[in-house]
Amino acid sequence: MKRFLPQVEAALERWVPPETADPATIHKAMRYSLFGGGKRIRPVLAMEAAAAVRDETPGIAEAACTLELIHTYSLIHDDLPDMDNDDYRRGRLTCHKVFGGAMAILAGDALCTLAFEILASLPHASDQVRARLVVEVAQAAGTKGGMIAGQVHDIEGEGQPPTAERLELIHRAKTGALLRCSVRMGAIYAGASPEELAALTAYGEHTGLAFQIVDDILDIEASSEELGKTAGKDAAQQKITFPAVYGLDRSKKMAEDERVAAWEALSIFGARGGPLRDIADLIVRRKT
Amino acid sequence: MKRFLPQVEAALERWVPPETADPATIHKAMRYSLFGGGKRIRPVLAMEAAAAVRDETPGIAEAACTLELIHTYSLIHDDLPDMDNDDYRRGRLTCHKVFGGAMAILAGDALCTLAFEILASLPHASDQVRARLVVEVAQAAGTKGGMIAGQVHDIEGEGQPPTAERLELIHRAKTGALLRCSVRMGAIYAGASPEELAALTAYGEHTGLAFQIVDDILDIEASSEELGKTAGKDAAQQKITFPAVYGLDRSKKMAEDERVAAWEALSIFGARGGPLRDIADLIVRRKT
Repeated sequence: MKRFLPQVEAALERWVPPETADPATIHKAMRYSLFGGGKRIRPVLAMEAAAAVRDETPGIAEAACTLELIHTYSLIHDDLPDMDNDDYRRGRLTCHKVFGGAMAILAGDALCTLAFEILASLPHASDQVRARLVVEVAQAAGTKGGMIAGQVHDIEGEGQPPTAERLELIHRAKTGALLRCSVRMGAIYAGASPEELAALTAYGEHTGLAFQIVDDILDIEASSEELGKTAGKDAAQQKITFPAVYGLDRSKKMAEDERVAAWEALSIFGARGGPLRDIADLIVRRKT
Repeated sequence: MKRFLPQVEAALERWVPPETADPATIHKAMRYSLFGGGKRIRPVLAMEAAAAVRDETPGIAEAACTLELIHTYSLIHDDLPDMDNDDYRRGRLTCHKVFGGAMAILAGDALCTLAFEILASLPHASDQVRARLVVEVAQAAGTKGGMIAGQVHDIEGEGQPPTAERLELIHRAKTGALLRCSVRMGAIYAGASPEELAALTAYGEHTGLAFQIVDDILDIEASSEELGKTAGKDAAQQKITFPAVYGLDRSKKMAEDERVAAWEALSIFGARGGPLRDIADLIVRRKT
């Protein structure tokens, strides 16, 4: 899980303008949220997927780091008073609490825009791969089953009866689409065969679902201190979550089933799938 | 100015999901702001620039319409209570007044994301042109001298002494970068020579500056009814504007100088530059 982290951090450091670059405030706000203790799960998934396909994929870290830009922009906007109104994230004050609402809106916009600029100018990729990755990420982040669609369903679901259909609608889009895209990005960058791409896509879907189920469980079982954000908010906001629909025990069983399905999807990779299997295990067993 | 409008509207209609597409609310919010009476200056500039270079550029409207998505997203976010807090835009309630703050934030995010998805999948362009246009638009909309940089300077300039340096910093970025990019997009799409691209870039810079000077003048001279938005807001918010720095008379002279410079930049195009000259004239002489 950790072997590619230094490359991800270096790529982010290289592409995000320094705090001294004019206008300084926006770059400070972008960096505050970006270097705020994220686990870099999406970039790591992209790089491990690429490594499952091919030994050498120069420049993959540049592509992978854009997933963290998209994820961070969505968190900054999600935390705004008009959205989830969160004061803490990863144990620190949220972007708008430190820089104000206007700068938080613009910092999110800027991270989103920068992600596409980087993808379209990847130094070691062909124009075909650049354009394809822009489309993949834009669709995973967009309104047609992507991240923004999930956020809308999430907002509109508050206070609605927690049904299995509504739950799937929210989570397949809200977190699932970008996690799926992360694995696909690595596969596409590495020139995966159609079979390899399909297997990794299935892995990404199962892992993404496991991730969200565990997230919902931790919101109930972990403390705010452990999570670095306000625990118990889902219930307070009447969010539609896995425990709300299926109960805690069944949710834990479902997470384990998804972990097993993720492992099975990797069978064609043999030993090369080891690191991705470890990630699926870690996602289900994490405590924060 | 108007000959390409039907193609721009058709491209927007084709690429933006219908109001019935799930999740309906976000698509309604996106369309509400997008089809709210905009003048489509940026797409028209792109298409006229392409037409100055080459007779036939199939699919240019698809590329050009993305400029309107970026422009509209920036207006939606600019109007939010945390930013300029405007209730009216183009004579109608602003997006957040109709759909709420959360949906307005997401609608802006979605329009931005969709713009890059379209550019990277332009049906009639090569992957090279697709990737290059994503980079052009992302840079024009970003924090390194682009639109977001201008918005930051604008916010931070409120209440500061109105100096010529601060004014140039704001407007070159806030509106200038995307207008310049519009003309460059058309030139690049049409395969312009380096000389043609340089000439059209200069035209875009002069026209963009003229546009902003006139915008600042109209905020003083026109009524709210004529503008479709609150007039006199610049002075009320102590914004740094051309009239604030140079006075009204000198500002009018400057707009006229920029119009003449825009004309001169087009000299290598001869008669083919006619429509672009007309646009420069219209921009300076408009009353709203």
